[in-house]
Amino acid sequence: MPQVYERVALIGLGLIASSMFWAMKRGGLAGEVTGFARSAETRETAREIGLCDRVCDTLGDAVADADLVVLCVPVGVMGAVAAEIEPFLKTGATVTDVGSVKADVIAQVGPHIPEGVHFIPGHPLAGTEHSGPRSGFAELFENRWTLLVPVAGTEPAATAKLRSLWESMGALVDEMDAEHHDLVLAVTSHAPHLIAYTMVGVADDLQRVTDEEVIQYSATGFRDFTRIAASDPTMWRDVFLSNKDATLEILGRFTEELFALQRAIRQGDGDHLHAYFTRTRAIRRGIIEAGQDIDAPDFGRGGERNK
Amino acid sequence: MPQVYERVALIGLGLIASSMFWAMKRGGLAGEVTGFARSAETRETAREIGLCDRVCDTLGDAVADADLVVLCVPVGVMGAVAAEIEPFLKTGATVTDVGSVKADVIAQVGPHIPEGVHFIPGHPLAGTEHSGPRSGFAELFENRWTLLVPVAGTEPAATAKLRSLWESMGALVDEMDAEHHDLVLAVTSHAPHLIAYTMVGVADDLQRVTDEEVIQYSATGFRDFTRIAASDPTMWRDVFLSNKDATLEILGRFTEELFALQRAIRQGDGDHLHAYFTRTRAIRRGIIEAGQDIDAPDFGRGGERNK
Repeated sequence: MPQVYERVALIGLGLIASSMFWAMKRGGLAGEVTGFARSAETRETAREIGLCDRVCDTLGDAVADADLVVLCVPVGVMGAVAAEIEPFLKTGATVTDVGSVKADVIAQVGPHIPEGVHFIPGHPLAGTEHSGPRSGFAELFENRWTLLVPVAGTEPAATAKLRSLWESMGALVDEMDAEHHDLVLAVTSHAPHLIAYTMVGVADDLQRVTDEEVIQYSATGFRDFTRIAASDPTMWRDVFLSNKDATLEILGRFTEELFALQRAIRQGDGDHLHAYFTRTRAIRRGIIEAGQDIDAPDFGRGGERNK
Repeated sequence: MPQVYERVALIGLGLIASSMFWAMKRGGLAGEVTGFARSAETRETAREIGLCDRVCDTLGDAVADADLVVLCVPVGVMGAVAAEIEPFLKTGATVTDVGSVKADVIAQVGPHIPEGVHFIPGHPLAGTEHSGPRSGFAELFENRWTLLVPVAGTEPAATAKLRSLWESMGALVDEMDAEHHDLVLAVTSHAPHLIAYTMVGVADDLQRVTDEEVIQYSATGFRDFTRIAASDPTMWRDVFLSNKDATLEILGRFTEELFALQRAIRQGDGDHLHAYFTRTRAIRRGIIEAGQDIDAPDFGRGGERNK
């Protein structure tokens, strides 16, 4: 595959940045990749495991001369980081990010993008329950969607170049506007995460059922919630605070529907329950057909999945 | 492995019964296994795929002379089936079941157990999103818990024999009383299932986000909910109706906690959110250590898991 950018700077060295690095190296997609992390310990780990061609001790060093700057920091600090790198961005460079929320990131970062620099927010819909510089792997983005959210007036050539980078890392790419992105993600990701965190918290709180019982008998449904609820706490705090309106809207609808089902249980309305449960099966079928999950009968059973 | 029962009757030929058959055959655990299903189509499928040594057209034929009768029908019809088999049960036989709720099953089935017949309710904590006679496989119970709920006065030797059958099929076995079982399952299984059904229903209802978007972008958390929400609608209707009190209690606590988290989001209380999300990570670690899930970084990625 041909090189897409000559110099790429990764700001923040967690799961996404480290996976981008390994995917870019595998494909020869970048000439040199610099990296910066706020924590000295993370920078040291990165140097130890060969994460980035050059790990820099300052934001300015990492960003200077970069053709592509990727902000991989929690959504809550995007604005502060953008303010710091502003003086170092070179004309013609592209700034993108990988945050799970887009409208808020645009509001934070947009004002710090100098004339002549492209700003193309992005969001790879890929992740695991793991975080940190050691958690990345080159295959993370394969067959997963990356959403680009170009702001008004962005040069099509700059967007095409960024799209090409993501596609070369194995991603499927789509474009949409920021408000729609934030609503779609509230439904498919943010609300489910909050719900999973809540259910795991309830189980942990319950005095009459021991933690040991919860853990031993988790294979009956609860296990899938704990997988979701094990994700990075800082990232998720920031997601909920910065996508507040859409998340609260979806949670409001969720609560309404849950109350309706609780009422059906209380009143013994089996027809209502059966009809509801039948309807939800079809969505699952669609997800398997779209290649976003597998149809194996013994998921989570303890074997190796493809790495 | 030695034969545990000479004749076993499987009543209802879905995922659990068909998995029990293949597991018993693999281990030589039963002399002859008879099977019965209410639907002629299911009986035909069973004959076609060699499910059961003998598929019977009446309940009486299947149960006559059986040393172990396993009720694998939805919880809602356990009592009716028990009434029908009552005249055919032989002295010294054991009746068990695989229902997800225990107090209600005991209330339904208990009155139909004749003098001299053992009744040992059970519940294998194993399942997939698939159902029907073709969905079974011999490995379903391996490293999964089966809970036995012997009623007062049950002969220890009869319980030991049933435990030995489950252990020989690969299961871990525990015993507890029915009320505790129903509370533990409400937390680890019943409430999570209702919540997953609800969230999938919300996504399906939302007019401003298309089904295609929900399906394409499901890998961000939603996918794990759809897996849970694809389970058999009849089984789950019956579970919620028959474990009403415990399920509603857990859902009540869940709603309380969810409201507290929603309030923290609305008020921008990041510390509350961060502390909550940090606490839930520990439970996940316990589940992996207990061997009830795996720690692979790329779950659900589209490859084959161990079959």
